[in-house]
Amino acid sequence: MSKLNKKKIFNDPIYGFITINYDIIFDLIEHPYFQRLRRIKQLGLTHLVYPGALHTRFHHALGTMHLMDKAIEVIRSKGHTITNEEAEGVCIAILLHDIGHGPFSHALEHSIVNGISHEEISTLFMDELNKIFKGKLDLALKIFRNNYKKKFLYQLVSSQLDMDRIDYLKRDSFYSGVSEGVVNTDRLITMLNVKNDELAIEEKGIYSVEQFIIARRLMYWQVYLHKTVLSAENLSVNILKRAKELALNGDELFCTPALKEFLYKKHDLQSFKDNPKLLKVFAELDDIDIMSSIKVWKSHSDKTLSTLCKMLINRNLYKIKIQRKKFEKDEINKISEKIKTKLKLSDNELSYFVFQDSIINNAYNPKMDNINILLKNGKTLDIKEAADTFSISALSTPVKKWFICFPKH
Amino acid sequence: MSKLNKKKIFNDPIYGFITINYDIIFDLIEHPYFQRLRRIKQLGLTHLVYPGALHTRFHHALGTMHLMDKAIEVIRSKGHTITNEEAEGVCIAILLHDIGHGPFSHALEHSIVNGISHEEISTLFMDELNKIFKGKLDLALKIFRNNYKKKFLYQLVSSQLDMDRIDYLKRDSFYSGVSEGVVNTDRLITMLNVKNDELAIEEKGIYSVEQFIIARRLMYWQVYLHKTVLSAENLSVNILKRAKELALNGDELFCTPALKEFLYKKHDLQSFKDNPKLLKVFAELDDIDIMSSIKVWKSHSDKTLSTLCKMLINRNLYKIKIQRKKFEKDEINKISEKIKTKLKLSDNELSYFVFQDSIINNAYNPKMDNINILLKNGKTLDIKEAADTFSISALSTPVKKWFICFPKH
Amino acid sequence: MSKLNKKKIFNDPIYGFITINYDIIFDLIEHPYFQRLRRIKQLGLTHLVYPGALHTRFHHALGTMHLMDKAIEVIRSKGHTITNEEAEGVCIAILLHDIGHGPFSHALEHSIVNGISHEEISTLFMDELNKIFKGKLDLALKIFRNNYKKKFLYQLVSSQLDMDRIDYLKRDSFYSGVSEGVVNTDRLITMLNVKNDELAIEEKGIYSVEQFIIARRLMYWQVYLHKTVLSAENLSVNILKRAKELALNGDELFCTPALKEFLYKKHDLQSFKDNPKLLKVFAELDDIDIMSSIKVWKSHSDKTLSTLCKMLINRNLYKIKIQRKKFEKDEINKISEKIKTKLKLSDNELSYFVFQDSIINNAYNPKMDNINILLKNGKTLDIKEAADTFSISALSTPVKKWFICFPKH
Amino acid sequence: MSKLNKKKIFNDPIYGFITINYDIIFDLIEHPYFQRLRRIKQLGLTHLVYPGALHTRFHHALGTMHLMDKAIEVIRSKGHTITNEEAEGVCIAILLHDIGHGPFSHALEHSIVNGISHEEISTLFMDELNKIFKGKLDLALKIFRNNYKKKFLYQLVSSQLDMDRIDYLKRDSFYSGVSEGVVNTDRLITMLNVKNDELAIEEKGIYSVEQFIIARRLMYWQVYLHKTVLSAENLSVNILKRAKELALNGDELFCTPALKEFLYKKHDLQSFKDNPKLLKVFAELDDIDIMSSIKVWKSHSDKTLSTLCKMLINRNLYKIKIQRKKFEKDEINKISEKIKTKLKLSDNELSYFVFQDSIINNAYNPKMDNINILLKNGKTLDIKEAADTFSISALSTPVKKWFICFPKH
Repeated sequence: MSKLNKKKIFNDPIYGFITINYDIIFDLIEHPYFQRLRRIKQLGLTHLVYPGALHTRFHHALGTMHLMDKAIEVIRSKGHTITNEEAEGVCIAILLHDIGHGPFSHALEHSIVNGISHEEISTLFMDELNKIFKGKLDLALKIFRNNYKKKFLYQLVSSQLDMDRIDYLKRDSFYSGVSEGVVNTDRLITMLNVKNDELAIEEKGIYSVEQFIIARRLMYWQVYLHKTVLSAENLSVNILKRAKELALNGDELFCTPALKEFLYKKHDLQSFKDNPKLLKVFAELDDIDIMSSIKVWKSHSDKTLSTLCKMLINRNLYKIKIQRKKFEKDEINKISEKIKTKLKLSDNELSYFVFQDSIINNAYNPKMDNINILLKNGKTLDIKEAADTFSISALSTPVKKWFICFPKH
Repeated sequence: MSKLNKKKIFNDPIYGFITINYDIIFDLIEHPYFQRLRRIKQLGLTHLVYPGALHTRFHHALGTMHLMDKAIEVIRSKGHTITNEEAEGVCIAILLHDIGHGPFSHALEHSIVNGISHEEISTLFMDELNKIFKGKLDLALKIFRNNYKKKFLYQLVSSQLDMDRIDYLKRDSFYSGVSEGVVNTDRLITMLNVKNDELAIEEKGIYSVEQFIIARRLMYWQVYLHKTVLSAENLSVNILKRAKELALNGDELFCTPALKEFLYKKHDLQSFKDNPKLLKVFAELDDIDIMSSIKVWKSHSDKTLSTLCKMLINRNLYKIKIQRKKFEKDEINKISEKIKTKLKLSDNELSYFVFQDSIINNAYNPKMDNINILLKNGKTLDIKEAADTFSISALSTPVKKWFICFPKH
Repeated sequence: MSKLNKKKIFNDPIYGFITINYDIIFDLIEHPYFQRLRRIKQLGLTHLVYPGALHTRFHHALGTMHLMDKAIEVIRSKGHTITNEEAEGVCIAILLHDIGHGPFSHALEHSIVNGISHEEISTLFMDELNKIFKGKLDLALKIFRNNYKKKFLYQLVSSQLDMDRIDYLKRDSFYSGVSEGVVNTDRLITMLNVKNDELAIEEKGIYSVEQFIIARRLMYWQVYLHKTVLSAENLSVNILKRAKELALNGDELFCTPALKEFLYKKHDLQSFKDNPKLLKVFAELDDIDIMSSIKVWKSHSDKTLSTLCKMLINRNLYKIKIQRKKFEKDEINKISEKIKTKLKLSDNELSYFVFQDSIINNAYNPKMDNINILLKNGKTLDIKEAADTFSISALSTPVKKWFICFPKH
Repeated sequence: MSKLNKKKIFNDPIYGFITINYDIIFDLIEHPYFQRLRRIKQLGLTHLVYPGALHTRFHHALGTMHLMDKAIEVIRSKGHTITNEEAEGVCIAILLHDIGHGPFSHALEHSIVNGISHEEISTLFMDELNKIFKGKLDLALKIFRNNYKKKFLYQLVSSQLDMDRIDYLKRDSFYSGVSEGVVNTDRLITMLNVKNDELAIEEKGIYSVEQFIIARRLMYWQVYLHKTVLSAENLSVNILKRAKELALNGDELFCTPALKEFLYKKHDLQSFKDNPKLLKVFAELDDIDIMSSIKVWKSHSDKTLSTLCKMLINRNLYKIKIQRKKFEKDEINKISEKIKTKLKLSDNELSYFVFQDSIINNAYNPKMDNINILLKNGKTLDIKEAADTFSISALSTPVKKWFICFPKH
């Protein structure tokens, strides 16, 4: 008998169609905790540089799940067993891997919450969803926490060549229009295999891996660590820091209720554990809360706060200089003096306007884990050793740069 | 002597690079009135159906300007004079053609402001910018208002084959991933010409025009009037209507200051003319104001408002049925009764939950203006007559459909 | 246990990767009869207009097989049984559907062979391959000949929405760069279903079908029946006709052995049946035989032949005029007289240089078979009736045009 | 006054439209010497591995001209003078840079002609065309030979970042479907500048250059030096060598007249200088001559020749092994003995079936010339020094590999 197509299908400009293969996945996507990701941009303020980069963590999460489906199919076709339960579990794990991300994660983690990583909050959300769905996420959680016997499933979710990275490089490159970051998802996934319970790429895919590592390096410089993006992100961090400073000082600030909770109180991971309702409040928080507040703060009586907010909203960002060595104190002092005088700032206020920091680009990090190449003779080698030049080796040394920010005029 | 490239370049996933050719354009883009368009999505809530459709009016405006540059180049190459002043003017006109759009334009125009079209507000903004830039927009305004002697310049800005339409079809199709809407921008623009001061497409481009008309028709059904998009848009209209009703009734509602102005007072076009500051407040209003308020209103004490808001935020939209004839009163009454009882609604409240409306898809409208085909013999013909089938004629008859909306369960 | 990926994978700029799912398919592709398709361009001389259109029947055949794999997967997922034997059979049938094509099929069928269609030769090849592969193509042949009980399998191979058409529109559009012909293969195939043993497209895919029909229409005008393509094809027909005329007259002509067989002898379908070796000779014939001979014939002593060959090789094609009504005898006579005098031609020779013919574009032909739309209520309707405008009706009327060709100077 | 668009436009699936900006370019393209490039594939036999890679030198030449147009526009916009004559000249130079290529260049240069490079023949053709066009190519020739005062014009035609390389990487990657080779043509060209009469890339484009170098490296391994491509190319070389051996021995071989000239006589560069008609014969030679002969030679009485030809036509290529060190004599001997016995070959014949050779991949070669990065301080640096990692340095060391070929069974 025929039944009309009732499966949910998502249009994706990148992969065409994304289909949902498990009922539980459908239900998870429908849940408000996941729908919330529709309101959190994948790349924060990057759209101020690349106006197309407005895609959300929602779309990225769907993308990773789509790639996971393909990866499972490929690995099974190579003769490795992945049961249906495992397949569902690893798909849930990748779907939810970023569910703990707050708005402008970086900014948030360095300002209004204290030392809570999004991974930890993802785990809290997954535990909570597991209760709601009555244990159906047990296996997914095991995989996510690397407690499951088949380690390669964890590696599909989290490693240097996981579905997360493959999708975000492809997606960020697509929406920003930075073609240097395009990776060959098809080929990378087709070449996946498993050896000794470790993920590996078959030798024929070695050049796609090389290109993947380079693409990652270039995306860091051209997008994630683009100087104007850095400038905008640091501006948003400083805005939230200043707002928190004022809030803890008892000043009144326009706020959505969810933001108020985190602005007026000090919260760390322990707070979430002590107060189960806090996660619900966090789940209300997204890009919109932050941006709507910043828009209103443009007219706040605190000149530091209002100045910073105007700079962000009108895209009059910090001027930023980047170089390979630390900036001399002299140079910073000279700039600081000028700005301090011009804007009539206290020393505390000055720190919001002139500052130095550093960034690191580590395209391939064999200390974290390996990208294994599966040779035709059945042995595996780290990509560094398998490559026929030293270029991958060269790319496994982190590149550090220093930058200073200060107002334009 | 060599100078480094200082011109501003925008990355566009669609056209590659968009360059800025006039200093005034650069300054206009920098202005907060234009930067505001970064915070207004081109397609309102369409991303609830097509998750990639998050692109903004900012990006679209740049796109139209880019196409205008190409169009000018082509028309000049065909032997028609466009002076540098005219070129700059028509580029400004297209860049700013949508600057008056508010957030979720449709929703806004049918709820919290009274009968003000975005075109009228665009004109107000352009007049204001013209003052700020000391008359440098004079010619642009003349063209925009169709008061300039060369009528074809106006047609490049506003007609059935203007740069606006060409870019939005291409862009909306690209970001939604609905490939049925792809149009051949390159060919359409290459085939542009002018005859008797009217824009025309050379005969060789006739099939690209045919395809353009079909693409527009299909984009209406698959995107702009997609049933779930209709459902979401009507939901947002009803939310704002209800909020305005409560506000005028004196109820307290969480609001950004800009939204408060329009929620708690009745404004029409005259208000803008009477109070020059009102435009400045309007300029503060964008998607973020609306969405942040809706998020908070989920917990408002008015059950109608809070229910509608929860439906939108958690994407639990109205169920919607569409058909080619009006729905029978009986059918609507039956649904109404059920919902009324279930949700315990008054008649007034019911109108926010169950309602009928209609939509029209008019792919080609020769009553508005013509798409002219320039034949090899030098004559022009309307595309309807120039085509070799009746399919374009068939598409110039508007297609009307009716829909009803009601809550899902 | 792990095994390295040994399956054959083809790179396709359109679909990414094409995988081979059945051993017999792999063996068929390896066979010289199929490898021969590498040397037969899909679009004959179209590359003289669209220089990218050099793709072969080999690549197209792989593409149709790829789409068939997807279609099988979709139809199975809708609850219809397709056994593995049927899946293999229908994949073989589509893979080999064009195997009987000769070089420049059109030209060939109208010149050096007498009234043999490529479909008939395809069947001969398939019978031959069935012998070689010991009956393994039995089911494929049944499906191909529409003798198999499940009719919808035949429709996947041959109907107005078969995998052949979907691939060739997509592929020809891609390689020619004519974007008006792009079709949404993903959506069309995802919407496939079966009702009463007939292929149907689910209602949600109706606009993709509409766009598919338009795309087909536009590809006919812009590519398949493009005036310069017509000119080149008619030139090649005339060259082969003239060569055959000379050959039958006993003149000596440079020839590859395979071409010699068909140039110096009269062959029809019966010849193939009478002489089993003839198919082997035909299998040696491809674009290269024709083109290498034409290149040499540029210097042949017969002025008509050498002139035509020079015209083709140096791309100095016929001038061609196209219009919607038949050309008047007067007009043709005037041109004929001029050319006859100028080139000093006999009446017989003149017919190679000046001639009239007609073409037909029939975007949708409900007389042939129907494209069924499967409504949500479970009924099916022809797309003409299911559509909400008359445009599809309009497109089911064939459009006829007339053209004349004559030398340029 | 209006004139209809009469300019010739080429459709290009890669760049959209390619327009012809100079009358002389139009005439050159029309000339049979240039039209001949339509019959010479850019990548020889690569389509046996990547079935889409059928694009011709004709299309590539148009592509380089298109990029040259863009490059001229960019360099002028940076304040450097390029006169119209120079622009035309450098466009002609790039258009014709490959006009001397014969069919399967590699095969040809190593078999039937003696040590003639295609660059030398390109110059002969350009001289000849310059005569035909009465000196209009004077400036183009000066640039092509690097005799023109503005050296950077030469570098646009021939250097490590010339328009040739940018187009061929993009084009070969596109048609083969190997996305690892995609380069950002838009960005590379937008970042072009000139410093001290040398081409340079502005600092902001440094990552596009890095990606370009990697892309080139990967294209060498995955396409140009792909093991199966090497196998096919060596097979074609051996076929032509054997044919030439037989021809010089007086054996009769099926041949097109053009091929006969080169097969039966020994020609070197001096022959072309001594006999001006030889270039005309060479101009008749293209892929078709070679392939049509090979097809016929499948049935030649020389078993070596016929075996090799059958292997090529039926794509039953040599088995090939590649490694980073030279193969041991022992290993080769073992294989040789087996093959010799099995195929009953003489020692001379054996050399056509079993052989070793080496290949080199040199992604960036600073010994040849430099890719200059123009820093913001106005100085230029070689990309190796300008880069922030040693990966480019690593890539400037040539990678050498060895391979052996032998029949499969």
